[in-house]
Amino acid sequence: MDPRIREHAEIIADHSVDLEEGDDVVVDAHPVAEDLVVALHEVIGERGANPITMTQRTGKRQQRAYLRASDGEFETPEHELALIEATDVYIAIRASDNVTQTADVDPEISAAYQQAHHPILEERLSKRWCLTQFPAPANAQLAEMSTEAYEEFVWDAVNKDWEAQRDHQANMVEILDPADEVRIVSGDTTDVTMSVDGNPTRNDHGEHNLPGGEVFTAPVPDSVEGEVLFDMPLYHQGREITDVFLEFEDGEVVEHSAAKNEDVLTEVLETDEGARRLGELGIGMNRAIDQFTYNMLFDEKMGDTVHMAVGRAYDDTVGEDNEQNESAVHVDMIVDMSEDSFIEVDGEVVQRDGTFRFEG
Amino acid sequence: MDPRIREHAEIIADHSVDLEEGDDVVVDAHPVAEDLVVALHEVIGERGANPITMTQRTGKRQQRAYLRASDGEFETPEHELALIEATDVYIAIRASDNVTQTADVDPEISAAYQQAHHPILEERLSKRWCLTQFPAPANAQLAEMSTEAYEEFVWDAVNKDWEAQRDHQANMVEILDPADEVRIVSGDTTDVTMSVDGNPTRNDHGEHNLPGGEVFTAPVPDSVEGEVLFDMPLYHQGREITDVFLEFEDGEVVEHSAAKNEDVLTEVLETDEGARRLGELGIGMNRAIDQFTYNMLFDEKMGDTVHMAVGRAYDDTVGEDNEQNESAVHVDMIVDMSEDSFIEVDGEVVQRDGTFRFEG
Repeated sequence: MDPRIREHAEIIADHSVDLEEGDDVVVDAHPVAEDLVVALHEVIGERGANPITMTQRTGKRQQRAYLRASDGEFETPEHELALIEATDVYIAIRASDNVTQTADVDPEISAAYQQAHHPILEERLSKRWCLTQFPAPANAQLAEMSTEAYEEFVWDAVNKDWEAQRDHQANMVEILDPADEVRIVSGDTTDVTMSVDGNPTRNDHGEHNLPGGEVFTAPVPDSVEGEVLFDMPLYHQGREITDVFLEFEDGEVVEHSAAKNEDVLTEVLETDEGARRLGELGIGMNRAIDQFTYNMLFDEKMGDTVHMAVGRAYDDTVGEDNEQNESAVHVDMIVDMSEDSFIEVDGEVVQRDGTFRFEG
Repeated sequence: MDPRIREHAEIIADHSVDLEEGDDVVVDAHPVAEDLVVALHEVIGERGANPITMTQRTGKRQQRAYLRASDGEFETPEHELALIEATDVYIAIRASDNVTQTADVDPEISAAYQQAHHPILEERLSKRWCLTQFPAPANAQLAEMSTEAYEEFVWDAVNKDWEAQRDHQANMVEILDPADEVRIVSGDTTDVTMSVDGNPTRNDHGEHNLPGGEVFTAPVPDSVEGEVLFDMPLYHQGREITDVFLEFEDGEVVEHSAAKNEDVLTEVLETDEGARRLGELGIGMNRAIDQFTYNMLFDEKMGDTVHMAVGRAYDDTVGEDNEQNESAVHVDMIVDMSEDSFIEVDGEVVQRDGTFRFEG
C-alpha cells in the first residue's frame, strides 16, 4: 500500500479526531476509498478503539435508488440516530466513482431526506469528527487531473506538518481576531469592506476538515459594503456558476449577476433573508493547494484566495453580543488574490498579491 | 441490471424479512454485492423503510487489518450494539473479493473478537433477519465455477417458489418433530445417535437463510454418542478444514482430528464449553443445490446431506424443559449421505442413500 495512505490514516486518528483507547468510531466511506479505510482500521486496531464502517452518506448509487423509489415522506431513522448518539468519533471519507451519481434525483426529494436527517447531522457535529478526501479516479476527473497527479495533490495538502501550519495561520488569527474593519480589493472588480468587530477568528488546522488551512470568521451582518467579483467558479447542486458578481449595501446583496447559471445564483439568494447576507469570511492559507479542483473542501483553503459565504454563520465565529446570520444555506464563493490584490485590516495592508505581511 | 437481482431483492424484502413501512433496516454487504444493495435500496424506498448499509461483517480486508493490529483485548462496541438494538431488520449479504482474506489472522484473536461481539450477535438474532449470498467472482472461484454458471446456481437456489419448498420439507418436519432418537450412519466412518426429544423441528424455507432448504433441530446436549466423519470440507475464518472427525461421549467431543488445519478445528472446540457439544442437527433438502460450493449457506441445504453444528443451539429449536447449548460459536459440518448411508428415526429408516421415505 502507498505509504502516504498510512500517513493520512495516522493524521486523521492522531491529529484530527484525537483517537483514544476504547473509542467507538464510525467511518463513512465509499468502497473506492477502501485502501484508506483499511489503513484506518489498522490504526484503530493499534489504538484499541472499535470501528464500524458504513456507506451511508457516501454510497450515492444506492442512495439514488432509494430516493428515486421513495414517495418523499421521510422520518428520522431511529437506528442511525442511536448509532451516532452512542459513538465517540465520526470520520467521513469523501470519494466517489461518479460525482454526478445523484444528478437525476429530484432536488425536492433530496431536500426532504436531508431535513429528516438533520437531527443526525446535529448529533454528528457534537462528536469528535473529521471530513476528509480520498483521491479516487472520479474525483481526479472532476479536477481535470490524472489520477496520479491528483493523488499527489491530495496527499501534499493532507499529509502536512499541521503544528507548523497552525503556527503559520496563528499570525493571521492574531491580526484578524481583535480587528474591526476588513477591506478586500482585487483588480478593479472587487472592493468590499466589512466589520468583524467582536466576532472570533478561527484557526482551521486540519481537525474537522482534512485538509484544513484557512482562518475564518463571520462579518457583522449589516456592515458589508461594496462589490465583489468571485472569479473562481463554484458548483452548486451539480451546476457550475461562473463569475458571480455581488453588490452589497448595508450588508445586503442589492445587485447580482453571473456569466453562467445566473438563475441558480438567484435561487440561492432568494432562499431566505439570511441568504442575501454574508455568513463567513475566510482566508485560504494552505499553499499545497495550488490549483482549483471543483471541491470546496480544498478550494476554500487554496493559498492566495479569500472566500465569502452567503447564508448561515457558524456558531463559533459569532461573538456573544453580535447578531448571527441565520439561513438554510451556506454557499462559499472564492476570489483569486494572487495578482493586483490586497487585504487591509483596520487600514493596514496585511496581504498583497498573495504574500502576507508576516511572511517577510 | 440483471432482473434476477431485482427478484432476489424482492424475495429478501417480502418473503424473508417481511419488510414493512417505517422499518429501520441494516444491510451488511461487501462492495462487490453493490448491484444487490442497490436493488434492495430500491425496494426499501418503495416500501417506505429506512436503510443503513455497512461493511461491518463482510468487509474482511479492513477486518483483517484491524484484527492483526489489535492486541486481542476487545470490548463490546456500544455504538454497534445501540444500532442493532434500535433496528427492526438486519440483512447480511455474503459476497467477497477474496474468500481467504482473513487467512493470516491469528485464530485466537478472531475468537476473542467474536466473544466480545457475542451480545451484538444475540441482538441481531432477536430481530427480523436474513443472511443471503451475492454471486461474486471470488465466490464462484471458491466453487470452482465460472462466474456465469455460479450466478445461475445461486439464483436457481434463491429465486424459488418458497411455498412449494416449504410444503415438501413439511414431510420431514412431521417425522422429526415428535421423534426421540435419531441415528445417522454413513459408510463405516459415521455412526452417531442423539436424542431430539422435546426439541421442536424447524422448517427453513428461505427466511433467516436465503437460500433456505433444510429442516433442523437441536440435539439434547448430553445425548450425543458415537463417531462422525464430516467428509465434506468446511471453510472457517478463511481456512479450509478437511475430514473433520469427532467422537462423542455423553454429548461431549472426546476425540477430534482433521486432515488439514486441525489447529483451526482445535481452536473452535476450545472456544468455550458449549463449543464441544452439538447445537444443531440439520437435513439438506434444496435440490436446486446439486453441487458442493464450499459455502455453508448452500452446502448445508444440499440434497443428500446432513449437517451438525458444534456450539450454540438456536432458541427456537430447544423445548422449554430442555437444556440449550450455549456457546460463542456455531460451526456447521457436513456428511455426504448420497451413498451407503441412512437416517433412522426411532428405529425406522426415513432416508436411504439420499432418497426420503416420502419421496416413494
